[in-house]
Amino acid sequence: MSELFQNRVRALRAFMAEQGLDVAMVTNPINVYYLTGFRCDPHERFLALVQDNRNEQTLLFVPSLDREAAQAAAAGCTIVPITDTENPFEVLQNKVGATLGTMGVEKKDVSFWQYERLREAFPDAAYTDVQPFIMAQRLKKTPQDIAYVTRSVQIIEQVVEHAFNHAKIGMTEAELTAELEYQMRVFGADAPGFDTIVLAGKNSALPHGKPGGKKLEENDFLLLDMGVVKDGYYSDITRTFIMGEGTEDQVRIYETVREANQRAIDAVAVGKPLATIDRAAREYIESCGYGPYFNHRIGHGLGLEIHEEPSIHGENGNLIQPGLLFTIEPGIYLPQVGGVRIEDDVYITEQGEIQVITTYTKELKRIGC
Amino acid sequence: MSELFQNRVRALRAFMAEQGLDVAMVTNPINVYYLTGFRCDPHERFLALVQDNRNEQTLLFVPSLDREAAQAAAAGCTIVPITDTENPFEVLQNKVGATLGTMGVEKKDVSFWQYERLREAFPDAAYTDVQPFIMAQRLKKTPQDIAYVTRSVQIIEQVVEHAFNHAKIGMTEAELTAELEYQMRVFGADAPGFDTIVLAGKNSALPHGKPGGKKLEENDFLLLDMGVVKDGYYSDITRTFIMGEGTEDQVRIYETVREANQRAIDAVAVGKPLATIDRAAREYIESCGYGPYFNHRIGHGLGLEIHEEPSIHGENGNLIQPGLLFTIEPGIYLPQVGGVRIEDDVYITEQGEIQVITTYTKELKRIGC
Repeated sequence: MSELFQNRVRALRAFMAEQGLDVAMVTNPINVYYLTGFRCDPHERFLALVQDNRNEQTLLFVPSLDREAAQAAAAGCTIVPITDTENPFEVLQNKVGATLGTMGVEKKDVSFWQYERLREAFPDAAYTDVQPFIMAQRLKKTPQDIAYVTRSVQIIEQVVEHAFNHAKIGMTEAELTAELEYQMRVFGADAPGFDTIVLAGKNSALPHGKPGGKKLEENDFLLLDMGVVKDGYYSDITRTFIMGEGTEDQVRIYETVREANQRAIDAVAVGKPLATIDRAAREYIESCGYGPYFNHRIGHGLGLEIHEEPSIHGENGNLIQPGLLFTIEPGIYLPQVGGVRIEDDVYITEQGEIQVITTYTKELKRIGC
Repeated sequence: MSELFQNRVRALRAFMAEQGLDVAMVTNPINVYYLTGFRCDPHERFLALVQDNRNEQTLLFVPSLDREAAQAAAAGCTIVPITDTENPFEVLQNKVGATLGTMGVEKKDVSFWQYERLREAFPDAAYTDVQPFIMAQRLKKTPQDIAYVTRSVQIIEQVVEHAFNHAKIGMTEAELTAELEYQMRVFGADAPGFDTIVLAGKNSALPHGKPGGKKLEENDFLLLDMGVVKDGYYSDITRTFIMGEGTEDQVRIYETVREANQRAIDAVAVGKPLATIDRAAREYIESCGYGPYFNHRIGHGLGLEIHEEPSIHGENGNLIQPGLLFTIEPGIYLPQVGGVRIEDDVYITEQGEIQVITTYTKELKRIGC
């Protein structure tokens, strides 16, 4: 276990001591990775990091198939493999004993069903939520985290440029999607970070639309919302091109979104509420008469997941702080016409400086002109 | 809402009446799809089908962005959109009232955190688990389900054949993976069904290995475990090729796995325990001296998810019944040498006949000979 992960477990242990917790169980697979360096999608199987402060043991319960991988990745942990025929709650009880005062758990990542099994295994325990603490730790991205995210962003920006060079009238959204996901791999991605969004023409007005058989036509908006995951870290970028010259209306919409994106970036300042970022973009879009057509929050955190805290919306009074990494992605969506979204990934350094990690141009680019 | 979905909701309502449940809340997104036809990945947002038997209402709570899509897909439901700034539990309480006797929930898909919010909204309610009922319904695949799965299998089998024709000495696992995932799209997949497994040489002995920079070499096993999702339905197939002639040992391992796969298929018979399927393959592999190298269960259900019930392992005493769809995938993995796995998708028709949906040959195929 490298120093990075040791420091993270140390912070958890300090928090547990402060809260009077003997045992904490971390079951969110991303948080298990965050604390141990062991990445695992257990599907329906049991995966848990159990920190026992009474004897300073760090136990890592893994599906037995993953025993070797866990040993290699999380050398400082005691690996407890669990076979498909064992009851993980019995194994857990055997390892930590049935008599617990208070147990820290991740309340959003323990199911009601698991909670009932825990109550059977530890009948006298009370439960407290340790997830908010871990999530608060994860909010603060280190330069090391950002180096990984930057690599992920560099990959997807090459794919955006490939899309610009490769998209042609007559090609379908689905064909272009296949080509772009192929290029993600070629440029070094482990996988697409999420369902790649390639939408053309009036489809681009659907914020959650899926690429289909629609063919690219003259004067279509071509909206690309894509990202990759590389070494566990995500990127997320949106750019919108126009097929051909486009109309004056399209240019006006595009430039409105571009200005809104810039105003939101300019509004990022340590110590102000997160809501100010959303409002800066929204007020500008409203002032241009497109208010009803910007119908989603302006952004979300990302890092080890594609959606993390913080949620950047107009009611979020939490303050902007160093270490945050999040998207800024205003959009305008006119039903039956089309939509434009421009999305960047923004980091606030430990010194409080604003760093826009995405570098792909936001000047209006026309394809095939 | 088509008749298919209406029938499913009707079955849930009958179950609720039988159990004395006024209200049931379904929160697993796949189960929401199963009951309504509305497919949605809500991420951290709230998605729930709430069946209220007191007034025969079927409410569908969706993220407000998905309102139109939900209305189109689930016409028989009353859509309740929830914005990012609303508290979904308050909205829920407003819609069904705070005074509930017993509420059906999906205990594995309600988090401990959500359970606490429910207790606040419905302080007098008791909770009972409706998920086992829904999962039992989902076990029974209809011919309509199987038509979709068959389409998904046909796509992935074209990709397996493409792999056979395209793989070459010197190509890396990662390059071949990129090409195969591209071909999935070309052949009509919505997306890869899971992380595509392309492993060569000794890497093929890692059941959970990830494709990387390893180059294909003479006499490598080339293990491909792949599937796609198409219209919500999954396929899952594994075939193992040899690069070049291979050694006598490799051929012996291959033929042992092939025979084990066939014996497991032959063991499928309505009314016998699921364990007999696993045991038929395992006993044969043990008799050939490879027992310790077959270290996972023989299969799993699939359908609307890549892993569903039933789990086919040697201790599962549940009986084989019509309507089941599951994989049969024995393997032998020799560390430092390599591994072979051969996986089929098997359906038991409503008449109790065994139907192997995967059709790709299991004869040993050598690449480049």
